[in-house]
Amino acid sequence: MNVYGEQVTKLIGELSSLPGIGVKGATRLAFHIINMPEEKALSLADAISSARKGVKYCKRCWTLTDGEECSVCASPNRDHKTIMVVESPKDYAAYERTGKYNGVYHVLHGVINPSLGIGVSDIRLRELILRLEQEDTEELIIATNLSVEGEATAVYISKLVKPTGIKITRIASGVPVGGDLECVDEFTLLRALEGRVEL
Amino acid sequence: MNVYGEQVTKLIGELSSLPGIGVKGATRLAFHIINMPEEKALSLADAISSARKGVKYCKRCWTLTDGEECSVCASPNRDHKTIMVVESPKDYAAYERTGKYNGVYHVLHGVINPSLGIGVSDIRLRELILRLEQEDTEELIIATNLSVEGEATAVYISKLVKPTGIKITRIASGVPVGGDLECVDEFTLLRALEGRVEL
Repeated sequence: MNVYGEQVTKLIGELSSLPGIGVKGATRLAFHIINMPEEKALSLADAISSARKGVKYCKRCWTLTDGEECSVCASPNRDHKTIMVVESPKDYAAYERTGKYNGVYHVLHGVINPSLGIGVSDIRLRELILRLEQEDTEELIIATNLSVEGEATAVYISKLVKPTGIKITRIASGVPVGGDLECVDEFTLLRALEGRVEL
Repeated sequence: MNVYGEQVTKLIGELSSLPGIGVKGATRLAFHIINMPEEKALSLADAISSARKGVKYCKRCWTLTDGEECSVCASPNRDHKTIMVVESPKDYAAYERTGKYNGVYHVLHGVINPSLGIGVSDIRLRELILRLEQEDTEELIIATNLSVEGEATAVYISKLVKPTGIKITRIASGVPVGGDLECVDEFTLLRALEGRVEL
């Protein structure tokens, strides 16, 4: 039964199709929205449509940006000979938050995942290869996630780029800083052992 | 740093102001939205603005509805002499889902809550009193929540309506069906004891 009227029911349906939001959560959000001041609700709606319509990517590294190039690619103070390959703009943002990485990025927008039908041509890999041909890159740091797909994509990229002679590195895997060995899974413990460094 | 561009950052801000959504969740939702097919994202935005702009209340019971009156108030098969007072359209929907209640409703849209500055005039109480004056009501069932504010509002309404001679009842409070006594709080256990019925 369409107990809340057509429009509110439609809104609940739309909200519950978002990831991590069930019907109960969507109902709560819908009620919050219809009780909001009208200009706040319209501003939320407008933020959704403008973000979707106006989404722009940096022409060099493919992260999200407002202009033609992101602030990192446009900066003369960054080391443009070091490119870090990440899966998403969120990973780009995570490394930017460290404030210590001085190179530039390349955002793949995904990883190769045959089980989801995501192949080599569905991620920004061709764009990376083109960049490596055009730019004078010295090091390619592969920082895809440490998941099965992230690892497989890292191996794929490294095989692809190897013949160019560019130095290829992978971010280290091991026990997180502040991590308690007792709480760390055995794969990570083995990785930490394999990747041990001399003091 | 505005690392995702202005529009996506604005969208994250708007989403994270919704209840139960933090910055991480809002970021995840924003990325989901910008990766949606454009017509799906616009349809979500449109559902928000139309639900907010087009929100309509039943002129008798104040629940959400599409037309002038909700289907319950418009039905000649319902007992219009029995009015159940609920806090929100969600509670209306919950009792409608039982399929066993044959009376009509009155939606207060809140309860008296001095700590949040919600007074008698902020809920649809005046409308209830007007209805009781105009309609030939036999029983008023107070079904506000069993919270402190819901209970206080129930007492307030019952004192207000008492002089009219209308029968006033309150939904029962006790151990939920299927409930395990061991897991029920002591207030509910005492309520269940006080409200015991003869078999």
